[in-house]
Amino acid sequence: MSILRCYFTLLCLLRILHTALGIWPLPVEMELGSNALWLLPDFGVEYKFEQPNGILQNLQYYLLPSWSEYSPPIDPAAKGTLAAAFERLRNDLMPFAGSRTCTFMPWKFYPKDAMPEPHIANSIAKITILFRLPTSPQSQQQEFYAIEISSGGEVLISIFSPLGGLHALSTFRQLFYKDSEFGGPYTPYAPLSIKDWPVFEHRGLNLDISRNIITPAEVQRTLEGLSLNKFNRLHLHATDAQSWPLEIPALPELAEKGSYHKSQIWSVADLRSVQEFGAQRGVQVYLEIDMPGHTASIHAAYPSLIKSYNRQPWPHYSAQPCAGQLKLNNTAVTNFVSTLLNDLLPRTSYYTSLFHLGGDEVDANAYDMSVSELRPHLQSFVNHAISEVRSHFLTPVVWEEHLLDYNLTLPNDTIIQVWRAGKPNGPSALAQVVARGHKALFGANTHWYLDCGHGDWRDPDPKNPDSPVKPPYQDYCPPLKNWKQIYSYDPLADISEEQRHLVLGGEVHMWGEQTDGMNLDSNLWPRVAAAGEILWRGKGEVSENVTRRLAEMREWLVGKGIAAGPVTVTWCLMNPGNCRQ
Amino acid sequence: MSILRCYFTLLCLLRILHTALGIWPLPVEMELGSNALWLLPDFGVEYKFEQPNGILQNLQYYLLPSWSEYSPPIDPAAKGTLAAAFERLRNDLMPFAGSRTCTFMPWKFYPKDAMPEPHIANSIAKITILFRLPTSPQSQQQEFYAIEISSGGEVLISIFSPLGGLHALSTFRQLFYKDSEFGGPYTPYAPLSIKDWPVFEHRGLNLDISRNIITPAEVQRTLEGLSLNKFNRLHLHATDAQSWPLEIPALPELAEKGSYHKSQIWSVADLRSVQEFGAQRGVQVYLEIDMPGHTASIHAAYPSLIKSYNRQPWPHYSAQPCAGQLKLNNTAVTNFVSTLLNDLLPRTSYYTSLFHLGGDEVDANAYDMSVSELRPHLQSFVNHAISEVRSHFLTPVVWEEHLLDYNLTLPNDTIIQVWRAGKPNGPSALAQVVARGHKALFGANTHWYLDCGHGDWRDPDPKNPDSPVKPPYQDYCPPLKNWKQIYSYDPLADISEEQRHLVLGGEVHMWGEQTDGMNLDSNLWPRVAAAGEILWRGKGEVSENVTRRLAEMREWLVGKGIAAGPVTVTWCLMNPGNCRQ
Repeated sequence: MSILRCYFTLLCLLRILHTALGIWPLPVEMELGSNALWLLPDFGVEYKFEQPNGILQNLQYYLLPSWSEYSPPIDPAAKGTLAAAFERLRNDLMPFAGSRTCTFMPWKFYPKDAMPEPHIANSIAKITILFRLPTSPQSQQQEFYAIEISSGGEVLISIFSPLGGLHALSTFRQLFYKDSEFGGPYTPYAPLSIKDWPVFEHRGLNLDISRNIITPAEVQRTLEGLSLNKFNRLHLHATDAQSWPLEIPALPELAEKGSYHKSQIWSVADLRSVQEFGAQRGVQVYLEIDMPGHTASIHAAYPSLIKSYNRQPWPHYSAQPCAGQLKLNNTAVTNFVSTLLNDLLPRTSYYTSLFHLGGDEVDANAYDMSVSELRPHLQSFVNHAISEVRSHFLTPVVWEEHLLDYNLTLPNDTIIQVWRAGKPNGPSALAQVVARGHKALFGANTHWYLDCGHGDWRDPDPKNPDSPVKPPYQDYCPPLKNWKQIYSYDPLADISEEQRHLVLGGEVHMWGEQTDGMNLDSNLWPRVAAAGEILWRGKGEVSENVTRRLAEMREWLVGKGIAAGPVTVTWCLMNPGNCRQ
Repeated sequence: MSILRCYFTLLCLLRILHTALGIWPLPVEMELGSNALWLLPDFGVEYKFEQPNGILQNLQYYLLPSWSEYSPPIDPAAKGTLAAAFERLRNDLMPFAGSRTCTFMPWKFYPKDAMPEPHIANSIAKITILFRLPTSPQSQQQEFYAIEISSGGEVLISIFSPLGGLHALSTFRQLFYKDSEFGGPYTPYAPLSIKDWPVFEHRGLNLDISRNIITPAEVQRTLEGLSLNKFNRLHLHATDAQSWPLEIPALPELAEKGSYHKSQIWSVADLRSVQEFGAQRGVQVYLEIDMPGHTASIHAAYPSLIKSYNRQPWPHYSAQPCAGQLKLNNTAVTNFVSTLLNDLLPRTSYYTSLFHLGGDEVDANAYDMSVSELRPHLQSFVNHAISEVRSHFLTPVVWEEHLLDYNLTLPNDTIIQVWRAGKPNGPSALAQVVARGHKALFGANTHWYLDCGHGDWRDPDPKNPDSPVKPPYQDYCPPLKNWKQIYSYDPLADISEEQRHLVLGGEVHMWGEQTDGMNLDSNLWPRVAAAGEILWRGKGEVSENVTRRLAEMREWLVGKGIAAGPVTVTWCLMNPGNCRQ
């Protein structure tokens, strides 16, 4: 009988490994055992520091803003980013009275009533976090982490920076399930060894908070999900033609008149709290002020700065209503841009090294010029804006059109964000950008546009017999990009090994025409997570294993209060191998 | 100055009429004035009864179950359906301390800072609800309502049944906005006259609670939205191949073994409470037990009843995993069906006149027969099931395949639910059904399938080089049916005037492969509302007016705690006429 039980236990533990391993994104190196360990309710954390010649090397630890408050040898647990993250982890894993618990019973991942009861002999009482001395200048080492868990319950997390530590805790959280009998968290994977680091250094979500209303609280919830998926960038597309929600104290009328409503302004404090919230979770929140296109909302406060405001017929002057672009070759506009950036950049640069100057879809018609006529004026505009960004020691980011459509000359450190796929059978837009020696971010609308497929939001014009707004009312980029399509995106398909270093990473895009706080979660998740694994690991391949791990990630997201939809039919999760075709 | 103000007020009030009239679905007859009225916080209700010859005629009032508790001349306010609905209305409209308020300030529907302040002279202190004597046997009179509001604040609602009264209150709620200064609700539309009744008598949502987990609470939330949109049917697709969440006390192992988890069983009390919740809101909640296909989940409790359980390769035996169908020509199955229905029907028939026997996608291969070989066996099975349904005085509903694919003989009162569009250039499936003299429900998957477009949920089989699961991973019915596509559905396009009476109405379909409680709201809303107006009014035409009214309905839904996504860009709502093309 005991032999039988032992055999059964072994069998089940093996099955755990096979069917229920839910770490997302998948670590680069991972060896898992089959012993189970409790996590004790009062488990603690201890910090150690690798020291050469007895001198504490701590420069590398100053990577996140709030971390800079910590100065070794003061105990970082007092107020460091990592210490706060550890407290959040404990709150998430432990069923304290009244607190939400972010663990779950993984019954959805086993045949009915066949979830194995873990045979638990030992416990985890403490996590040791070891700060190692950097051995290379590579930025990847900053995000590296290793986790070692012994069968006896010793846990050692090795990192080079707090950011690596945040990633380690995100992974650590995913090792624990809720026990069906006691509720307490256990891991079935000891002894365990994980070494992990990202393929791409820039792993972002581009979130439009201008076209429809997205509140700071909703962005904070999104940051929780991003952090869990080891994203490190949130690109806030903060302003657009339709509204200017961002308070700029030096130009107070911008938001007063340009926002949708006085109750919907992102105050200086709102922005700071969101950036701080992100920084605490390893996510740089950086801003885009899209210019000179997509700026019609400036007209409400400064009508004289905008050319072709709401000019009709709008499709001739703009990609979408409302038409209107910042004037070029105009001193007042130059002064406005300087005032704007000198207000905003000092505040945001505390939390990020990037600033996005936009630059997409500049419409030459709005200036009554040809592209070649417009080019020198646009070059001057961009030169000025970039010089302002650089004066604050920030790296400028611009959309691909500046390079590919207007052939502007851009400083070499400018990051070019690509959003178009490129012509079929031609080089990808990404390849075109890196061929010109520029650093680039990928995220083609054929794969990574989360807004696509929800239909045409324009109204049919009853006076236009040839209205493009007609059945089946598809939008400009159908179909909807389902998570498998997102996961199958191979951004480096036509990038050579020599050019590879120019591809910093990419972003998945949530444009806001039909998204606000009500459907934000379900439009983002689990699809953003699918992009997250590609950003962490590089090219992937859709498989049942991916389905199952993503399905577990969705349970973690739900546990964090994020309304992520299901990945597949629950029956398919409970019956591995039975939904293949 | 006062003349100017007067002029300005008039202008604004006219604009209210033009841009902010948000009643959804649009009433059949409506005349609106431009005087504003407060709704007093303690506004009350008074019931009056039209009486011929001094004798109270009340038979028609007994249309909703709980209404039957009310017996005139006892004051119905004590405990009637309508009295409860009135209390909910008051809670929704009035900003009582701590209560959610379901009114909103309509600033999203005006240019920035141009929302008119209403000039309010009079108030509404009381609603009079007059029960009129039925003048015709037509079922439409049951749902008829009229609302008269005078400039002085007198409100008269005329109805023939409580159901009409519920519709009247849904419309009444949509007449009131939150005042920006005092918060209290006001209507800008007095004097007002509305007469309204539905085109179709069956206006339903088909909601799958089997493939993924949908809880009773989530269905109740959905019922709130359905009621607000004047739906009168919720079709619960309660069981399927993948799980059996429904407790059947006579067959307790069905749910114990066939549900996904013991915590996810719909108990007898759950079902009753959902049906009662619907009845209180004018929505009949009726059940489908899909048979003999889509029944593999019965195998867990009764393996001997199922043929070809999980037989591989599943695509040869079933439309989706898991394969398995109730055996035919089998006494045990006949007894099982009798036991099942005699347990379930007496409980549900208190709340509904319908029962759905399923019948879609019966796969002849699973019986190792041809369609013609299978036909007589299927006929016997269906004869038996229908006789059970009729023995409980319920009207059977079946899917179209019984008629169109298997050419079964069905009693004339059987309602045939159509889900396929029919072959291009041929008669629609709906036309084929009514041509054979059957009553029918429409809801073609080309327009009214809410699951479509979210991508293929199957896993690719690494052993299958020709796997259909491949980029771009589209599902079986792309693209996603956006709300305009749903709204442009013309179910009666090829139905003759003589056949029109056979089309009872239709249902919009929410299949559950990739939907559970997390994304239910955003997958349903606002799209279900779009279908709702077609069901209430008949064929519609997409226009800016429709966009704007639907956008207001979405605000009402949000006020009810339903996470409905935005209809369009907020700027377009605030700038009427500017997003046409």
